[in-house]
Amino acid sequence: MNIVIIGTGNTATVLGKKLKKAGHHILQVFGRNSKEASALAYELGTGSTNYWNVVNRNADLYILAVSDIAVEEVFQELQLPDKTIVHTAASVSKEVLKGGAEHYGVLYPLQSLKKDSDYLPEIPVIIDASDKQTLAMLDVLAHSISDRVIEAGDETRVKLHLAAVMVNNFTNHLYALVEKYCKDEGLDFYLLLPLIKETAARLDTVSPAKSQTGPALRGDEATIEKHLLLLKKYPQLEKIYALLSESIQQSK
Amino acid sequence: MNIVIIGTGNTATVLGKKLKKAGHHILQVFGRNSKEASALAYELGTGSTNYWNVVNRNADLYILAVSDIAVEEVFQELQLPDKTIVHTAASVSKEVLKGGAEHYGVLYPLQSLKKDSDYLPEIPVIIDASDKQTLAMLDVLAHSISDRVIEAGDETRVKLHLAAVMVNNFTNHLYALVEKYCKDEGLDFYLLLPLIKETAARLDTVSPAKSQTGPALRGDEATIEKHLLLLKKYPQLEKIYALLSESIQQSK
Repeated sequence: MNIVIIGTGNTATVLGKKLKKAGHHILQVFGRNSKEASALAYELGTGSTNYWNVVNRNADLYILAVSDIAVEEVFQELQLPDKTIVHTAASVSKEVLKGGAEHYGVLYPLQSLKKDSDYLPEIPVIIDASDKQTLAMLDVLAHSISDRVIEAGDETRVKLHLAAVMVNNFTNHLYALVEKYCKDEGLDFYLLLPLIKETAARLDTVSPAKSQTGPALRGDEATIEKHLLLLKKYPQLEKIYALLSESIQQSK
Repeated sequence: MNIVIIGTGNTATVLGKKLKKAGHHILQVFGRNSKEASALAYELGTGSTNYWNVVNRNADLYILAVSDIAVEEVFQELQLPDKTIVHTAASVSKEVLKGGAEHYGVLYPLQSLKKDSDYLPEIPVIIDASDKQTLAMLDVLAHSISDRVIEAGDETRVKLHLAAVMVNNFTNHLYALVEKYCKDEGLDFYLLLPLIKETAARLDTVSPAKSQTGPALRGDEATIEKHLLLLKKYPQLEKIYALLSESIQQSK
């Protein structure tokens, strides 16, 4: 498939690499910042532009891979009413593309994408489209880069994004807070890596509800008190510790 | 080394298997529940007892692998004042063993251990002892089952345990709450597994402080409001979402 990628960030970069690897032809990269557009285009073996009126008009698909808050604004500038355009945003309705494209839809990667990562992660892809023909086309495209392709509308996509925020952004924030706590206390954060990985790996075989452990679950109030005392210097962590321990006890 | 294991739970089982695999001789398993003691002893190719006065007195080391709240009580019953005894508890001072053992210490596995797991995870081991000779002996023992052995006193061990609770118990609880949310909303929780694993795997190369993403970090209030609205039915998740999003914004 011939594809134009609009955007130069994490999603544009990782999707671009995945698509190229799957044998698609990236016709062009568009980016407001010409240097970044050129750099990504170079990586994808194609050309770039930062002028809207130079956007290649011969692509089968235009992928609008910009941040959720920028989708509408960028789309207004794109001006390709007779083309097929998808966005990659979790929380933006596909209907914002209505009227500005002959066919439109969504290609949402349910993964944390980083442009400078040296490997391409597994990416479940959620697709949605304005019509059956476009949906079928996106299904083929998505399967070329992923084994897990799900058709789902705006509402389901937003719910999956909410779930993703909780398992990714929130756990990563816990790791970041604990990393800082370890540094401040002279502890080696990297001692915790085997534990962190084991907790994630265990999900393959055991429901997290069944593998919960720890002082809150055991009702070990003495240890909880000791921990809260140690966290007096870290008010954010103290609040999070109290709320999550309470929540674990309520879930028993 | 000749070892007696006191306890039949997750820690006793996984440490027992690791020690056996490393070539140590498990002389006996003690457990209050004779059936459980016998089952673990069978797995470790040894005998068991549930009578204190039948505990084998010829071991080089007695490992008290019981829950933190049971350590003192079990230790009182053990009555081996001329022996070397260690406990495996995160939050219990090694000094509770003082007087009841010639040499004493701690062998704390910094890992989430599950007796029915079909593999043995990597286990960083934190050691502490009453005297240099015992510490040296524990160091050799710990290195026989782990590449990451750290000598640290009671205070540091409690701090590491606190960090472990936050990266393991709290993230696992988030997974459990999200699993339930997905079930209630008709979503497939297992779609999130690649994301969960990527978040954990990324720690190998990128500091979590640097890889934070999401609506809170971006200041995308519209998405945060949308998510909080979707969580009205899930008060625990709603509170956690609000607190963690606030904390991410404060950490920027």
